[in-house]
Amino acid sequence: MTDSITCVTRNDCVQLDAQDALAPLRHQFSLPDSVIYLDGNSLGVLPKTAAARAAQVVTEEWGVGLIRSWNTAGWIALPQRIGNKIARLVGAGEGELVVADSTSVNLFKVLSAALRIIQTDANQRKVILSERSNFPTDLYIAESLAQQHGMTLKLVDADEITAHLNDKLAVLMLTQVNYRTGRVHDMAVLTAAAHQAGALTVWDLAHSAGALPVDLIGSGADFAVGCGYKYLNGGPGAPAFVWAHPRHAERFWQPLAGWLGHAAPFEFTSDYRPAPGINRYLCGTPPVISLAVLECGLDSVLAAEPLGGMPALRAKSLALTALFIELVEARCAGHGLTLATPRASEQRGSQVSFARDTGVDGGEGGYAIMQALIARGVIGDFRAPDILRFGFTPLYLRFVDVWDAVEHLVQVMQTSEWKQARFQVRSSVT
Amino acid sequence: MTDSITCVTRNDCVQLDAQDALAPLRHQFSLPDSVIYLDGNSLGVLPKTAAARAAQVVTEEWGVGLIRSWNTAGWIALPQRIGNKIARLVGAGEGELVVADSTSVNLFKVLSAALRIIQTDANQRKVILSERSNFPTDLYIAESLAQQHGMTLKLVDADEITAHLNDKLAVLMLTQVNYRTGRVHDMAVLTAAAHQAGALTVWDLAHSAGALPVDLIGSGADFAVGCGYKYLNGGPGAPAFVWAHPRHAERFWQPLAGWLGHAAPFEFTSDYRPAPGINRYLCGTPPVISLAVLECGLDSVLAAEPLGGMPALRAKSLALTALFIELVEARCAGHGLTLATPRASEQRGSQVSFARDTGVDGGEGGYAIMQALIARGVIGDFRAPDILRFGFTPLYLRFVDVWDAVEHLVQVMQTSEWKQARFQVRSSVT
Repeated sequence: MTDSITCVTRNDCVQLDAQDALAPLRHQFSLPDSVIYLDGNSLGVLPKTAAARAAQVVTEEWGVGLIRSWNTAGWIALPQRIGNKIARLVGAGEGELVVADSTSVNLFKVLSAALRIIQTDANQRKVILSERSNFPTDLYIAESLAQQHGMTLKLVDADEITAHLNDKLAVLMLTQVNYRTGRVHDMAVLTAAAHQAGALTVWDLAHSAGALPVDLIGSGADFAVGCGYKYLNGGPGAPAFVWAHPRHAERFWQPLAGWLGHAAPFEFTSDYRPAPGINRYLCGTPPVISLAVLECGLDSVLAAEPLGGMPALRAKSLALTALFIELVEARCAGHGLTLATPRASEQRGSQVSFARDTGVDGGEGGYAIMQALIARGVIGDFRAPDILRFGFTPLYLRFVDVWDAVEHLVQVMQTSEWKQARFQVRSSVT
Repeated sequence: MTDSITCVTRNDCVQLDAQDALAPLRHQFSLPDSVIYLDGNSLGVLPKTAAARAAQVVTEEWGVGLIRSWNTAGWIALPQRIGNKIARLVGAGEGELVVADSTSVNLFKVLSAALRIIQTDANQRKVILSERSNFPTDLYIAESLAQQHGMTLKLVDADEITAHLNDKLAVLMLTQVNYRTGRVHDMAVLTAAAHQAGALTVWDLAHSAGALPVDLIGSGADFAVGCGYKYLNGGPGAPAFVWAHPRHAERFWQPLAGWLGHAAPFEFTSDYRPAPGINRYLCGTPPVISLAVLECGLDSVLAAEPLGGMPALRAKSLALTALFIELVEARCAGHGLTLATPRASEQRGSQVSFARDTGVDGGEGGYAIMQALIARGVIGDFRAPDILRFGFTPLYLRFVDVWDAVEHLVQVMQTSEWKQARFQVRSSVT
């Protein structure tokens, strides 16, 4: 036990877990004994049901059912069936959301659609606005589309966004929760302001869906995309999702006009006729095995519904992250870790990031510190150039995990074990 | 036993199987006892290794390795590792081909790139040429891109293609083997002719890869895409593949500028810098479980290499389809089934299609005939409005399967059991 200036003890954390009504949800997951997993915001953990479901799809549905399983096992309806489950988590209605492709590809679809809707007005709106530190794939896709449309992708800091909502703006494209800092944008306020300025909004829910309550319909958002493999526990590279507000349902454009988004794909007609509503956002044949496993992840989140659902998960998430901030700031003071996540709970997603000051210990150490933690079984991740990122998934994390993770961090910092050469070597994925 | 005017007997088929050097390859697959599967051109069968591989990815790599498996289990390199295996089957070089997204999405990428390459010449080339009966998703994607580029998608019959290779042509986009008829285009001849006319070529290998020898480099093709779940046995909705000729490697455009196609994705820079060569055709995070299973399918095809590889598979495939044609024409004469597949072996893919004459038995019966066959365990498929389609995958089909399938077809036709009401009801997927 190391010294501490916080009044929270490990035993307090054990007590918090004992009182936690959501604690039983943890039993849904297969978690390695030696790991404290603070990276569910990058890849969620394995639901215990997933292995059996994968085996069923492979051995029975594919192996025995073969091509017949598109009908008999309901493969053809998986994008909608799973989409409807995600809809319950993000404030969308039945039939408004489908699972398809990747977040990047879906973003291409919805941003293309939003730009085309705006551009039919023969106006002077030539700006796509986003946050400078938005996740790169969002910026790259927007850059590609801006180039094609003769438009400008304007990147600003979070605090500057409202100042740029004007009559030049075509689309405001934001990730609701910043992947680096965990800062949350107010979707309703920014959407209303963008609409007031005559623009449309596209929201990336990669770090929102399953992490905090989202109200797509209530906020009036125009389009949204999101990720299946983070807080939805859908497995590595799980398919993503896409939503359009019903007011756009019959008029939005799908540039990736694949056959499964056709109104009648099995008529095999040579001309494209988009399916009604969101179904046009299907494109090619979906990866069935990955889709089926994603459903297991979703069911693990929906299992919280009888226990209070997303609001209850959000409350626990905020308690976990607040505790982590308190413990790190109290116990790791003087080690060059500066909170990069908003302290105000309403502005904080389900993660906590600390920036590693480059003026301490002779420069950057963030990467090596995270590697030393991972070697101890405390798995977070590092985001260049200086962010140590810790995700807190309330479905399976305990308060005692928070305490133990900080204890490891204290030891890593106090012993300077992160300075060992083996922690300095960069691997391709962090 | 029904009457027959062919001199081939079932025992002859048993003998052919006994002499077949490729026969042991069948043992790689899990095949239902009661099924003769003639739909490997729609969804290949299950390799026995796939279930264990899926379990390993889910339980060990995801469940235990968690986020670390992007490095430790090599997830990040799967698109290239599996791509290199596909390259061996289609005459492409190491590092030239990646697995990504769906065939439809990949077609969007390569057709976008081809159009942009052509359009830099400030020429008058405004035509994308394709075959009228090309697979719909190819036509829909081309229609979408033609619309965006102010171009025309011109659809002609197969025999009219060469007449349209002129100075108006931008891109010739063809599926090498027609999904309905199984007719094979000569890739080298058409590519040379298109180049002679100053155009580029895009080839869809959905019904070629793993079905017949393909020589992308040798034919001089510009771009190619293909499907993982047909002759490559990659599982339902397996990811697709994409290739660009090395001469285009450093200059072609990727509209779907996702982060995994960035030159350095883990630097998380805000501006897009495409990866060298084919790696820029990666986009979002790939569906790892589906990818891993696809590799099992590919390995099942590559297992033929010591036995003669694609040429040997092709020879068996042609023997199977020739036998099927001979037996059906001899034994089902007078039942309104007309061969829709070229009789000349060099023009025939690995399938046989019969058109159901609409003037027989009071109109269309093709759908119901196929349903009656499927009820007997002979699984082919129906392609509206009149095509009964039978795929012959030489990796796992026997000559005796051909004989038995025809015997069932003879019985279905002679007893008119297809007229039963239960076979008339259309399901969504056929």
